[in-house]
Amino acid sequence: MKVLIINGPNLNLLGKREPEIYGGKSFEEYLQELRELYPQITIDYYQSNVEGGLINKIHEVGFEDTYILLNAGAYTHTSIALHDAIKAISAPVIEIHISNVHQRESFRHHSMISAACVGVICGFGLDSYRLGIEAFLQRSTQD
Amino acid sequence: MKVLIINGPNLNLLGKREPEIYGGKSFEEYLQELRELYPQITIDYYQSNVEGGLINKIHEVGFEDTYILLNAGAYTHTSIALHDAIKAISAPVIEIHISNVHQRESFRHHSMISAACVGVICGFGLDSYRLGIEAFLQRSTQD
Amino acid sequence: MKVLIINGPNLNLLGKREPEIYGGKSFEEYLQELRELYPQITIDYYQSNVEGGLINKIHEVGFEDTYILLNAGAYTHTSIALHDAIKAISAPVIEIHISNVHQRESFRHHSMISAACVGVICGFGLDSYRLGIEAFLQRSTQD
Amino acid sequence: MKVLIINGPNLNLLGKREPEIYGGKSFEEYLQELRELYPQITIDYYQSNVEGGLINKIHEVGFEDTYILLNAGAYTHTSIALHDAIKAISAPVIEIHISNVHQRESFRHHSMISAACVGVICGFGLDSYRLGIEAFLQRSTQD
Amino acid sequence: MKVLIINGPNLNLLGKREPEIYGGKSFEEYLQELRELYPQITIDYYQSNVEGGLINKIHEVGFEDTYILLNAGAYTHTSIALHDAIKAISAPVIEIHISNVHQRESFRHHSMISAACVGVICGFGLDSYRLGIEAFLQRSTQD
Amino acid sequence: MKVLIINGPNLNLLGKREPEIYGGKSFEEYLQELRELYPQITIDYYQSNVEGGLINKIHEVGFEDTYILLNAGAYTHTSIALHDAIKAISAPVIEIHISNVHQRESFRHHSMISAACVGVICGFGLDSYRLGIEAFLQRSTQD
Amino acid sequence: MKVLIINGPNLNLLGKREPEIYGGKSFEEYLQELRELYPQITIDYYQSNVEGGLINKIHEVGFEDTYILLNAGAYTHTSIALHDAIKAISAPVIEIHISNVHQRESFRHHSMISAACVGVICGFGLDSYRLGIEAFLQRSTQD
Amino acid sequence: MKVLIINGPNLNLLGKREPEIYGGKSFEEYLQELRELYPQITIDYYQSNVEGGLINKIHEVGFEDTYILLNAGAYTHTSIALHDAIKAISAPVIEIHISNVHQRESFRHHSMISAACVGVICGFGLDSYRLGIEAFLQRSTQD
Amino acid sequence: MKVLIINGPNLNLLGKREPEIYGGKSFEEYLQELRELYPQITIDYYQSNVEGGLINKIHEVGFEDTYILLNAGAYTHTSIALHDAIKAISAPVIEIHISNVHQRESFRHHSMISAACVGVICGFGLDSYRLGIEAFLQRSTQD
Amino acid sequence: MKVLIINGPNLNLLGKREPEIYGGKSFEEYLQELRELYPQITIDYYQSNVEGGLINKIHEVGFEDTYILLNAGAYTHTSIALHDAIKAISAPVIEIHISNVHQRESFRHHSMISAACVGVICGFGLDSYRLGIEAFLQRSTQD
Amino acid sequence: MKVLIINGPNLNLLGKREPEIYGGKSFEEYLQELRELYPQITIDYYQSNVEGGLINKIHEVGFEDTYILLNAGAYTHTSIALHDAIKAISAPVIEIHISNVHQRESFRHHSMISAACVGVICGFGLDSYRLGIEAFLQRSTQD
Amino acid sequence: MKVLIINGPNLNLLGKREPEIYGGKSFEEYLQELRELYPQITIDYYQSNVEGGLINKIHEVGFEDTYILLNAGAYTHTSIALHDAIKAISAPVIEIHISNVHQRESFRHHSMISAACVGVICGFGLDSYRLGIEAFLQRSTQD
Repeated sequence: MKVLIINGPNLNLLGKREPEIYGGKSFEEYLQELRELYPQITIDYYQSNVEGGLINKIHEVGFEDTYILLNAGAYTHTSIALHDAIKAISAPVIEIHISNVHQRESFRHHSMISAACVGVICGFGLDSYRLGIEAFLQRSTQD
Repeated sequence: MKVLIINGPNLNLLGKREPEIYGGKSFEEYLQELRELYPQITIDYYQSNVEGGLINKIHEVGFEDTYILLNAGAYTHTSIALHDAIKAISAPVIEIHISNVHQRESFRHHSMISAACVGVICGFGLDSYRLGIEAFLQRSTQD
Repeated sequence: MKVLIINGPNLNLLGKREPEIYGGKSFEEYLQELRELYPQITIDYYQSNVEGGLINKIHEVGFEDTYILLNAGAYTHTSIALHDAIKAISAPVIEIHISNVHQRESFRHHSMISAACVGVICGFGLDSYRLGIEAFLQRSTQD
Repeated sequence: MKVLIINGPNLNLLGKREPEIYGGKSFEEYLQELRELYPQITIDYYQSNVEGGLINKIHEVGFEDTYILLNAGAYTHTSIALHDAIKAISAPVIEIHISNVHQRESFRHHSMISAACVGVICGFGLDSYRLGIEAFLQRSTQD
Repeated sequence: MKVLIINGPNLNLLGKREPEIYGGKSFEEYLQELRELYPQITIDYYQSNVEGGLINKIHEVGFEDTYILLNAGAYTHTSIALHDAIKAISAPVIEIHISNVHQRESFRHHSMISAACVGVICGFGLDSYRLGIEAFLQRSTQD
Repeated sequence: MKVLIINGPNLNLLGKREPEIYGGKSFEEYLQELRELYPQITIDYYQSNVEGGLINKIHEVGFEDTYILLNAGAYTHTSIALHDAIKAISAPVIEIHISNVHQRESFRHHSMISAACVGVICGFGLDSYRLGIEAFLQRSTQD
Repeated sequence: MKVLIINGPNLNLLGKREPEIYGGKSFEEYLQELRELYPQITIDYYQSNVEGGLINKIHEVGFEDTYILLNAGAYTHTSIALHDAIKAISAPVIEIHISNVHQRESFRHHSMISAACVGVICGFGLDSYRLGIEAFLQRSTQD
Repeated sequence: MKVLIINGPNLNLLGKREPEIYGGKSFEEYLQELRELYPQITIDYYQSNVEGGLINKIHEVGFEDTYILLNAGAYTHTSIALHDAIKAISAPVIEIHISNVHQRESFRHHSMISAACVGVICGFGLDSYRLGIEAFLQRSTQD
Repeated sequence: MKVLIINGPNLNLLGKREPEIYGGKSFEEYLQELRELYPQITIDYYQSNVEGGLINKIHEVGFEDTYILLNAGAYTHTSIALHDAIKAISAPVIEIHISNVHQRESFRHHSMISAACVGVICGFGLDSYRLGIEAFLQRSTQD
Repeated sequence: MKVLIINGPNLNLLGKREPEIYGGKSFEEYLQELRELYPQITIDYYQSNVEGGLINKIHEVGFEDTYILLNAGAYTHTSIALHDAIKAISAPVIEIHISNVHQRESFRHHSMISAACVGVICGFGLDSYRLGIEAFLQRSTQD
Repeated sequence: MKVLIINGPNLNLLGKREPEIYGGKSFEEYLQELRELYPQITIDYYQSNVEGGLINKIHEVGFEDTYILLNAGAYTHTSIALHDAIKAISAPVIEIHISNVHQRESFRHHSMISAACVGVICGFGLDSYRLGIEAFLQRSTQD
Repeated sequence: MKVLIINGPNLNLLGKREPEIYGGKSFEEYLQELRELYPQITIDYYQSNVEGGLINKIHEVGFEDTYILLNAGAYTHTSIALHDAIKAISAPVIEIHISNVHQRESFRHHSMISAACVGVICGFGLDSYRLGIEAFLQRSTQD
């Protein structure tokens, strides 16, 4: 089983940026823990601050036998292009958020991509990614 | 560890109601599976179609050492009273949805209770409940 | 043929409440007249001020061979839960209003439940209920 | 007793237009059935695709001793002029819809004319017209 | 000097329709008074309930040396086509209302045609038309 | 003189819930103080988390010679049914709020019930109830 | 007959300010012409840039036997206090505008005071004031 | 104890203006009664129709040991400047309304100043002022 | 191959009306050119300022083997009835605009009929009609 | 004559992505056909999923003697930056859409770039591009 | 060179009011510093809490050879009259804010006067005024 | 002291693009002037049309001892991602605009990034950048 985690804008700063919201651990450290937790899964990782870079990556892997966890960061709330990219591919995508976006500014309360995704996991800190993998594991038993 | 699952209006009809959206399994059957999966956890269950009934239950257990998974059904989108009930208690609450509400009517796209909950899990069918338990298990290791 | 009339909040006060809008006859008196008019039909009646009570009743009879006339009163304009209850059952439901809600406050101009019902009859005083029975009689000849 | 049925834009195509919404029967056929059902009532019929034509007809008969069933079609949702015409006359008008407009596009959910009419009957197919006659029959016993 | 008064939908009913708003005098009687008051002016009159009929008339006289008083009735609030017709011609147009539309329903508070007219006179009963002629008389001294 | 205090959802938790907003005193303690302050008044008390329960209580006492202080809690902002219940009865109702709702989330800034009440007292902590009694005392001298 | 013209903010600059919109004549010059035109009428004049100054003036003369022409300038679009002042007095008020406000920025399209006035005259340059006097002359013959 | 009552625009007309809404008693008469009722309190009074005049008064007394009852009249609904003035001072302010503003035009349903005040008392006629004094008396026992 | 061009309100004035927007050529002249360009196609033409007239024409030819180019003018932005007429027929319709409506007033930015048409061609002056014919020629090769 | 076709996000997937909306042909195949159809025209092609990449390309060619067909995909509905890029250059741009965006989700009904383009062609499948070339051919005869 | 600084409502309290937002220095002290910094410039100062007072001052100096720095305080967000005053004069005006209004309540995010000013400087504490002088110095070199 | 100027989309065209709005000088020329004016400051410059490119640059320098002037061009009005990037770093950022955006289209009136910046300088042509440096110079004396 192959999982690709895609992180959007500003998530490269995890551990460095607003630690009271996002925590003090870098994503690379967390990724290491995740790989140890699921040794049977190949977990790839991609991050970009460029909307089109995220789309390119989604296209690149989207017709393979892969599972995608997408934390589109701020593009979540504005990008129809990402919505279309997710709709265009065959691989399933889960929308992930580290913070509970509904407790923050109102412009973070609406997502343009939820309707194109399988589901949404939001608010559990970095553990949101692990829950996404759990969701895919269960789903893969049904495929 | 104690988990209480609270289901709101019309969720007593699971298995019977719109199976193309909610699946053909009753919640009681699923609950049985869940208990077998997590034998170390006491999983209680409460369902009511009455908004005030849900609030009463939240009050009743909300100051105990318990974890709450709340699928408030249609009240999710209209109930400030449920939002207040969740805010008023000390027990953590996760918002659960079986279907991906963002793929349905626009009046289901906004939640009145997300801001009062720890986080949201939405769109994974009945597996959304298991993911909620997973989230609480991880959280309990941090308490 | 079996018809169930369900009346929502404040309709227990008919004959007593704002008679210039709702008339001076109690619903029980009217029900008596209706039963005499349609002796071949079993006409049951249920009233509750509790949203969840209306949902419970709809669930209870909704999978039987029955026809439902629902005057949801003020819940008409706010209740997604009632909308879902109507959608969840197999029995047909007609939305009934005694007054012409479009001549009153703007918050009464939109109905959350119309889209889940067969049709709407509104503004004919208590005669709205009889017209609902007429509609069901015609419909039953097509079943 | 005299009833005038007024049909608005595109209703001349009944039986021909989108039969999955409006059914396959022409209005003329249905009118024939209706007249047989109520031999004691003179049922006149007028159809026009011109908003002003409908207004002219309403003015023409509106001060006579007549009852009007008005299916204003698409003008229902946009015409203040029709609203004013109904308000201006003394004859009572019932708003009729064949389909349940609340199950269709959102621009069909609001009616500009309901507030000027006695009441609304909507969603019963062609039977909506018969129910309108029933409503007038009852009303006429109170005049 | 030539003035054309154009009256829109339902204004043919003046004197007959809602006299508490529009007064009890027919427009023909008033027109007679107006002509006596201004013997030096040719005052023509046109009324139609058909939006396109009003447009046709505006086109017909709009390139002549004439002054137009337009009471577009309910079409005031909805007709972009009338707005365009007024913009398309060279004759000046004044928007007239008998009642003070700002004291009535909110859908009468906005005019689609004001921006295409010279000015607006509203709320003086039938005297609004005379004030419009006064405005044109003054204007003509400046041409 | 008889006063009934009706408290809505979550107000049973007073003293326990968010004390920085609602204070640390239970309503029962406060009620005791209030009764001592006004020995000449019979002060009854009812609390429910169920919207329909509040409506039932309002109906029950609403035609008696009583004065009602209603703190409808979160239902204040969403309940048309409560608005209708207050309108339907003859007893006067004052809307009470402990906190200044205008300093909190924007969904608490609008009340559905104010228009049906005599007046509103909001933001004085528990003293809001005493001020309500003061208002009724003054009012009773005018009855 | 006594008429008071009240001009609001920035109208003291007439003749000086944006002459392409307001013309090059000062109000004092125009006032002179107006007085010559209507020697039988006492025409008083008041201007203030202070909202409360306008209100004070309206109160001062509002219970006398006077007629008020009010060009409230920019306060037209924002002042509920002026609306209330007009409603509070017994003297009739006509709302006047020099320019056609509907051809300008959208924040000038709505008037807060129209509903409290007898009527509106807008867009005729300074001649709008004369038309207002004409309207009052006619009105006075009916008093 | 010192209380200052500040009344905003048009409230100088009390007793004279729309008596069916505001009653027939002048504020000066009422003030006399109030002073007799609370001989131990110095009750000062200020009224202005000028928004800036109200602000000046608030600044003047706002850093003294005083209590302010503010009925800002129509400025309640539009004045951010008053909101800021109240926020800027140390003296506590209660928002007062004579009529129940929620039963009137929708532009009176929102207050710009409530969030800056201690609380709101609305709808009790002139008695609203006495209730405000009662609230301050209770508050002063806690200072 | 048969094409019908239908032009809506004010388009009879082409060449005469606002030439800086619509150009100086009459539609009849242009039609001549078009017929010469496509001698193999029968190009019919219909214009009306009456909304219902346009609907009548659409009905008349809509079930024949014809192709319709519809420039509905101002009715584009307001007419649900035209939308319904297009939906009701079997002939394909292309929406045509001479000017780029998106560069003009905001009330011209939304079309009520686009969703019922095959496609939209907008902004190419009179050449928009030729492009419509080109589109139909291509389409006819696929039929 | 030189034409540049610029395709925005997800259009690289043509033929692969949602073929029921976009058809089964890749853009490269279609481009080949187009070049054969217009041998006298140099047709260049550029695609990018990066908003800034599209802007760069527009700048690069925008001051040359070229004609641009721009299908900005999802960026059509959100990109002010593209609007500005089109405004900034001298080369004319036509907005192209393969599908009829008005028959899809409401967030596709508004275009941020139309006002900066010559015109819009929408809904003709890949043939929309050919129609764009036809429009430019005609336009070039007028240059 | 002459500069006039105009401060609006509540800015007389600088140094006294909410020092965490506005700092602890009075404007008079700051003015002293500013005059020392720019000895070659005559810096005048005016403050008023009265909207009309600000307008009067703007009129008074607005046709002289002066430069105006306007911090309109709360009137920034509501005053069309100030917008008109600025438009009416020939002297250039810069809009100044001490705090970053975009970090505060949403009703402070929109300015009614920006469109009438040369530019906006906002968020630099009292230094915003100096920056305004810098901008005028540069501008004066171009005059 | 180190300042980085970051320019967003289409600002590479300065001097070439819409000179009536942005002037005829290229940014490179202006930059030269600025460096000569402030020889003691290292002024770096970066421009990109790619939203993610701007974010990358902000991250790259945002934790250094630098001051950022950001003219985000069209992304100002849409980019939550830029807002988040600014919030994430420690270096202070000032929002710069060459034109007065409030005098242009309404979609340029709101900024998504102002709330994350120190302050805003807008409308002074290229001099806006110099004012930004002035603001940082003053700020640096306080650090």
